[in-house]
Amino acid sequence: MCELLAMSANVPTDICFSFAGLMQRGGNTGPHKDGWGVTFYEGKGCRSFKDPMPSAESKIAQLVTDYPIKSESVICHIRQANSGAVCLENTHPFVRQLWGKNWTYAHNGQLKNFIEALPVEHHIPVGTTDSEHAFCWLLDQLYITFGRTQPASEVLFNFIAEHAQQINQLGVFNLILSDGESLFAFCSNNLHWITRRAPFGQAQLIDADVVVDFKKETSSTDIVTVIATQPLTNNEKWHKMEAGQWHVFNKGLCVFGSPT
Amino acid sequence: MCELLAMSANVPTDICFSFAGLMQRGGNTGPHKDGWGVTFYEGKGCRSFKDPMPSAESKIAQLVTDYPIKSESVICHIRQANSGAVCLENTHPFVRQLWGKNWTYAHNGQLKNFIEALPVEHHIPVGTTDSEHAFCWLLDQLYITFGRTQPASEVLFNFIAEHAQQINQLGVFNLILSDGESLFAFCSNNLHWITRRAPFGQAQLIDADVVVDFKKETSSTDIVTVIATQPLTNNEKWHKMEAGQWHVFNKGLCVFGSPT
Repeated sequence: MCELLAMSANVPTDICFSFAGLMQRGGNTGPHKDGWGVTFYEGKGCRSFKDPMPSAESKIAQLVTDYPIKSESVICHIRQANSGAVCLENTHPFVRQLWGKNWTYAHNGQLKNFIEALPVEHHIPVGTTDSEHAFCWLLDQLYITFGRTQPASEVLFNFIAEHAQQINQLGVFNLILSDGESLFAFCSNNLHWITRRAPFGQAQLIDADVVVDFKKETSSTDIVTVIATQPLTNNEKWHKMEAGQWHVFNKGLCVFGSPT
Repeated sequence: MCELLAMSANVPTDICFSFAGLMQRGGNTGPHKDGWGVTFYEGKGCRSFKDPMPSAESKIAQLVTDYPIKSESVICHIRQANSGAVCLENTHPFVRQLWGKNWTYAHNGQLKNFIEALPVEHHIPVGTTDSEHAFCWLLDQLYITFGRTQPASEVLFNFIAEHAQQINQLGVFNLILSDGESLFAFCSNNLHWITRRAPFGQAQLIDADVVVDFKKETSSTDIVTVIATQPLTNNEKWHKMEAGQWHVFNKGLCVFGSPT
């Protein structure tokens, strides 16, 4: 399997603290040694850092840990390969364009019979993973159904959730997807989230001997949500998502999602 | 204007030497301070490093200069903005997928009336540059003409060259485009290239006090072509391309191009 990490915030925020914890799971405190990647949005633009090397040993991961790139939307993934070889084209996140936006996608889980069950027509995978294939199929469904214009946000994400549920029938499909404004999270079996806002406190990483005092790092109006397959801190209360549950986050807040 | 740099090689080769020279033109020996980016292919996969900061001051550019990422195909761009604000979504190279490949594009020059002259339908720009708009139009023409299957290489690049010539009517359009295997270069007014192979010699950068002895860095079967808007070394013979001329490079060799 893999690990996912994502952030939605109402002000450009760096993810150095959470990233420092996650990266340790890539070959150090965890077995996810088959590459890693992270995509940062800045406005409509985004940039990714990727490496097929284990994150715990990667010079590029070290740069991202040390260099505070501030973003309102981030998606990060560390890989333990199960479908597709260890190589750059199979490294998440995957970024593709639709409707004049950059869409970023990362998947945790494993899908069976995906080539037969999810035929693709317009969006053709570059690599050989189940993950990228499902992303291409999802973009195809969006393009075939809505044509050249992005629908309203609730229509769009209800549609994506229905199709995530359909993909989920093929195995395990924990999904993070973003267009830079909205961050969509679909839980197959393994996603947690936490919203940090004033009054801020201290947090202690599980995977590294690092404590941060968010009071010193933030202003009182900041709202930051972090989503991860497993909680990254051991002294905060994370929400565990249920199977089939989904949420859309915008500027750090959960704005809508599946009926609970 | 901007500066372009690209490489095609028959073995994975790092571009640290050429990159070190080019980066100095981003705010130090040159005025191209409005961001930079580089895309490295590794097989079918690629990864980009981008920064809207001047390259001469960029920590990420420093990493790319120091860290020898080996690739058979590289495209690099430093920007002096003339169309579109200085921001990440306007930073080259632009990468999009077609036919299960990553296509990477960088442009030097400036186009007038591009929105009216180059209508886009399927591939919609994320940013506001003339460059990305022309890339989207080119992908649209490819998709509309050839559908779901990539044509043979000579058919494809003759088609691209004809359409590059059409875009070039709108202003200045020096273009580098790659799918990771083939590297296409179209000269509007400003492109030079050099092929290095045995017997290798020494090269001296123009923009930094750096000399490299390629004999020590290579094996005797290596073939490496470097393309740049302006020559990067002052003791080697670079080929100057003529207006309207184009070449396709593959594994370091010029394999075909415009009739001369």
